[in-house]
Amino acid sequence: MKPYAKSDFPVSDIRRFLEPGPIVLVSSAWRNETNIMTMGWHMVMEFVPSLVGCYIWSENHSRDMIRKSKECVINIPTVDLAPKVVGIGNCSGRDIDKFARFELTAEPGARVAAPLIAECYANFECRLADASLIDKYSLFVLEVVKAHVARSPKYPRTIHYRGDGVFMLSGTNTGKYRKHFRPANL
Amino acid sequence: MKPYAKSDFPVSDIRRFLEPGPIVLVSSAWRNETNIMTMGWHMVMEFVPSLVGCYIWSENHSRDMIRKSKECVINIPTVDLAPKVVGIGNCSGRDIDKFARFELTAEPGARVAAPLIAECYANFECRLADASLIDKYSLFVLEVVKAHVARSPKYPRTIHYRGDGVFMLSGTNTGKYRKHFRPANL
Repeated sequence: MKPYAKSDFPVSDIRRFLEPGPIVLVSSAWRNETNIMTMGWHMVMEFVPSLVGCYIWSENHSRDMIRKSKECVINIPTVDLAPKVVGIGNCSGRDIDKFARFELTAEPGARVAAPLIAECYANFECRLADASLIDKYSLFVLEVVKAHVARSPKYPRTIHYRGDGVFMLSGTNTGKYRKHFRPANL
Repeated sequence: MKPYAKSDFPVSDIRRFLEPGPIVLVSSAWRNETNIMTMGWHMVMEFVPSLVGCYIWSENHSRDMIRKSKECVINIPTVDLAPKVVGIGNCSGRDIDKFARFELTAEPGARVAAPLIAECYANFECRLADASLIDKYSLFVLEVVKAHVARSPKYPRTIHYRGDGVFMLSGTNTGKYRKHFRPANL
């Protein structure tokens, strides 16, 4: 499993990778600790600024780390990482160093102190834009401030969670309906 | 294109169909009017109560209808409906009756006045649970109060939007990682 070679990507266009609904890995850092969590509950909330809403539960060890550091990285794993994604989601950063345990490479970010996961297809560096919905809804409103996306393939093979231990793998991609869009909607 | 035969489904389990990230159709009713919108920005927010967050933009004709009626239905279309999903997302209910134009069957709901789309794989009847984030984030926090899901197939072939007119179609489903989950996480 080797790191993807990546390029900078416009933060206003990252919906391309999140809107299809993949499971993501959220990495964070606080003081001398790093952590990774598996997350399926997220949504795009705005193009400019590039906002993403993420549900981070009170039982997640990452929650306080992200709340205190006001930063994290949303990483998009591809299907080859599925066993690690499941492993990461079924243990706690309270007990172990997940980068070490799952043999993932922590790369420094450009805009945040939280580490990027080199083996993921894309890395979105985020700042906590609004903490006011955390207590009520466990909702972190994040702003993507820097995006790194693999140069190839064009469309990643992502994993999507159906609950009950079942994953859907992303299938074929098609542009055959594109001609039916109004230009302003593309 | 015929309607799916459906059964009642536990509202606390509907994450199975939304978390993978499909494009959905949101149907609504207000006074003597019905409408349908195509929506890709949504997230699961809680199991019990069954909460879903939906981004409904100020330019969407449905926004005021849902805000005023405090109800809507989230419908999950499968790939056979893709041309209609694109059509619905590229015209406005201000100008046309979308049920008539796209030859979709409006079925009465059990708990809301908004109509269900019979040709969709699943229908989630929703009440507006929290309107306080609409002005700031266009975020409608909905509670699913009744769910209807097709008896077969077990896993629908859904469509997922990548932006720029490109769709990803849901691929294979696998339970091969299930044994790596902690029982409490299933």
